[in-house]
Amino acid sequence: MTDLPQTMKAAILKHGGYSATSTGPVIEDAADWLEAAELPVPNPGPGQVLIRLRASSVNPSDLHFIKGEYGQPRLKGAAAGFEGCGDVVATGKGAEALNGQRVAFVAAGSGAWAEYIVTQMQMCIPLRPDISDDDGAAQIVNPLTAMAMVDMAREDGDAFVISAASSQLGKLMCSLGRDLGLKPIALVRRAETVEMLKSLGAAEVLVTSDPEIVEKFAAISATLKPRVFLDAVTDQLSEKLFCTMPNRARWVTYGKLSTEAPTLSQTGQLIFMGKRIEGFWLTQWMMSTPPADQMRVVAEVQARFADGRWKTDVSEHLTLENLVSNLADALKKSDGKVIITP
Amino acid sequence: MTDLPQTMKAAILKHGGYSATSTGPVIEDAADWLEAAELPVPNPGPGQVLIRLRASSVNPSDLHFIKGEYGQPRLKGAAAGFEGCGDVVATGKGAEALNGQRVAFVAAGSGAWAEYIVTQMQMCIPLRPDISDDDGAAQIVNPLTAMAMVDMAREDGDAFVISAASSQLGKLMCSLGRDLGLKPIALVRRAETVEMLKSLGAAEVLVTSDPEIVEKFAAISATLKPRVFLDAVTDQLSEKLFCTMPNRARWVTYGKLSTEAPTLSQTGQLIFMGKRIEGFWLTQWMMSTPPADQMRVVAEVQARFADGRWKTDVSEHLTLENLVSNLADALKKSDGKVIITP
Repeated sequence: MTDLPQTMKAAILKHGGYSATSTGPVIEDAADWLEAAELPVPNPGPGQVLIRLRASSVNPSDLHFIKGEYGQPRLKGAAAGFEGCGDVVATGKGAEALNGQRVAFVAAGSGAWAEYIVTQMQMCIPLRPDISDDDGAAQIVNPLTAMAMVDMAREDGDAFVISAASSQLGKLMCSLGRDLGLKPIALVRRAETVEMLKSLGAAEVLVTSDPEIVEKFAAISATLKPRVFLDAVTDQLSEKLFCTMPNRARWVTYGKLSTEAPTLSQTGQLIFMGKRIEGFWLTQWMMSTPPADQMRVVAEVQARFADGRWKTDVSEHLTLENLVSNLADALKKSDGKVIITP
Repeated sequence: MTDLPQTMKAAILKHGGYSATSTGPVIEDAADWLEAAELPVPNPGPGQVLIRLRASSVNPSDLHFIKGEYGQPRLKGAAAGFEGCGDVVATGKGAEALNGQRVAFVAAGSGAWAEYIVTQMQMCIPLRPDISDDDGAAQIVNPLTAMAMVDMAREDGDAFVISAASSQLGKLMCSLGRDLGLKPIALVRRAETVEMLKSLGAAEVLVTSDPEIVEKFAAISATLKPRVFLDAVTDQLSEKLFCTMPNRARWVTYGKLSTEAPTLSQTGQLIFMGKRIEGFWLTQWMMSTPPADQMRVVAEVQARFADGRWKTDVSEHLTLENLVSNLADALKKSDGKVIITP
């Protein structure tokens, strides 16, 4: 480890713990939550690896997290960022097998928005050489979530509902659904994305601002009988649509893009129709799904990126140096992911 | 069947189908929903029995139903009433075994608030001679719901939460929980009922009007770790309490005593803590639980009524003739069930 520097650039958290707010994954100015800093390069402990960053991604969960509105507390002064890819440059005891490998990773020990990252070896996936760094930087959170949630949906029939369907994750789920012979019903905010989602594989696409969306959705629901609603928005419209779904439907929330708190208007939906409301969290899925099943999913994800069936649309590349000043503006582009390079 | 009359007294529904309201199981005047009428005595078809009424009960579900706010549509002009007991006086093909027996029944063909009732033989439970007619009239809906829900709760640990715990059903669940070595946490509206519930077996009793109820409940929840909330009220307080319950807690609604529609204030409870919201409906339980398991539960229910561990507290007896005029007043008494006799 003699060739490693003592310190590194990082974007660190300005606040610790949780905030009591619920304002959603939007920021006006990243400087409210982050600052650029020079941190010591961390040391990998037993079972851990040290990774030199190639590229990190910015997910909605990162924004929830830096604002203190995510399901894990912040550590003030630590680097932010959950996901990226890079090269393993040092290993702790038991993790030697990964030495020198290019890996996609989830940051469990220190944040991904830094030049160097320490994480558990179990949180690393060696990358095939035909996967680009941009794709490698968004290889785990969205793709695994897509695979896991569509897997769950297909156990309950061939139609399922996706909100915020023009998100990276929504697009992955549409195309995956189509490839599996399923019928994704996509909900989008902007009419411009309707054709794109149809071409990706959505069986139906509805625009949430359509004044007749509830009636139109109810008609589609009566025909296609979707039993799972994979919801990143979780607002009152979600609740209304859920009420038109058939018996035994499940409203599975995995995000809170809206700040509106939905009201349960019809208890009878739960009592008489056997419906239920639940959540999905990738971390929980990774902790509770057997490694062999996870590996099967991971291999399928890489195959899809390698052969071009899936790709990460990049809206802008930022560096660790201009991240804090430019992130809010970069996020305003709605056509892809923000990728961070050292 | 020559000794049977041509017509009978009944309390019939004034309205058909569903109403679009959600006003809860309270009535100002039964005449808004019911009228006394003379109906033809029905004939049992294949697999059915004709029962001469001994006693019927009035459950919250009856009130939801007559108002068009229950999960099944009303048939205008048909007799109301879901549950009772009586003597089988005629049988259709295949149901001969029940002839002459005193049975508890759920009304599947014609309503229980009438001198004669037709129902499926599967909806009848022969009564032991040591069960009174009053107990027989409330032998199925509440006791089976109590057994089924407590069974569900005990699969998830030894503590569980009961709202509206001073209801007949709440009391059954408290004592059943205690007998099974569980720790029922009871929520009640009136401070006067606290001691009664403790003596019945509640490990903790909280009064919903207590300004510190959320903090007190949170402390109990942190200690006893209840994972199931059996909720007959389903209001905003229920939501607040659910948010203080531990990981993987389930909010199981089976009633809507409150007309307040609860807002889901913390989506993260579902996503990060693995909680979920669902319903319980006895009809669904009866349709999906194997007959042998149901029979085991039924036998246990009768044993409990026969030896006095359970009993039906009766607040008032009404007749089919004075039911419409007196029901609203009788329901104002909060200390037991209204029982209807011919």
